[in-house]
Amino acid sequence: MHNVFMQEAIREAQKAGDAGEVPIGAVLVHRDQIIARASNLRETTQNALTHAEMLVIEEGCKQLGSWRLEDTTLYVTLEPCPMCAGAILQSRIPRVVYGARDPKAGCVHSLYTMLNDSRFNHECDVIEGIEAEACGELLTSFFRNLREQKKLRKQALQNEQPTSD
Amino acid sequence: MHNVFMQEAIREAQKAGDAGEVPIGAVLVHRDQIIARASNLRETTQNALTHAEMLVIEEGCKQLGSWRLEDTTLYVTLEPCPMCAGAILQSRIPRVVYGARDPKAGCVHSLYTMLNDSRFNHECDVIEGIEAEACGELLTSFFRNLREQKKLRKQALQNEQPTSD
Repeated sequence: MHNVFMQEAIREAQKAGDAGEVPIGAVLVHRDQIIARASNLRETTQNALTHAEMLVIEEGCKQLGSWRLEDTTLYVTLEPCPMCAGAILQSRIPRVVYGARDPKAGCVHSLYTMLNDSRFNHECDVIEGIEAEACGELLTSFFRNLREQKKLRKQALQNEQPTSD
Repeated sequence: MHNVFMQEAIREAQKAGDAGEVPIGAVLVHRDQIIARASNLRETTQNALTHAEMLVIEEGCKQLGSWRLEDTTLYVTLEPCPMCAGAILQSRIPRVVYGARDPKAGCVHSLYTMLNDSRFNHECDVIEGIEAEACGELLTSFFRNLREQKKLRKQALQNEQPTSD
């Protein structure tokens, strides 16, 4: 079942990538039903808060009519950042399933273990590594393309410039 | 100048308290002008993301047309929680000024020092303790009232119940 829902999150990540956004996607599941789905939209909205996880949490609160997202599982393709891990705690999501680790900013296992810190008033069950390769490959190829495009633009610019001859 | 802007954040916190919300307020200042102000609205909106800091960050992005809140200072009455500290990092706010510490969930000095962790791609200048007493007293008296009301309700309920005589 985890793989089925993660495939839906991957679909959202692909939509983000197609729109030129860093390809991260999430779905929020309530009692085996998807109640919210979202892609990372930071560049499109120019709103720093519009990570995929934040958008499904906001929609989930609307759907359930409560800031407490009881009986839900959040599926996300990448290990949540500090903001999203914090939002997961704030909304009391009981279970989080993620794909690939984020060694640069991940706050579930990589830099902090924020979802399992008994000093906070909430802790989560966490499952990692579901469809990790597919989730990670989306990001790797996105950034590879970005670097190649940058290189091509640089070369084109150099070709346009008059030589000193 | 810090005290003047913190007074504005306190005004927002008072509005939250008047509405039955935990009294926390924030303002976002861009080049000496307030561009966003907000009260904590979690109960009113039933949206876990609507902490005062999040609302001013969202409005700030709108006002500046960018997810990067350059040349801004965030004033908030209470030390930010993990979600809000993460959102401050995500929106690249260069300076944060807060009133009272939050020993239970604060992520700037109390439980973590997230705004000064060189592993993240952003760090902030942080000033704490501006109008700390006023900021803290708002919270103390709010929770004192809450406990008293709870006690009164319990007593009223006991008086209503028939005795076993």
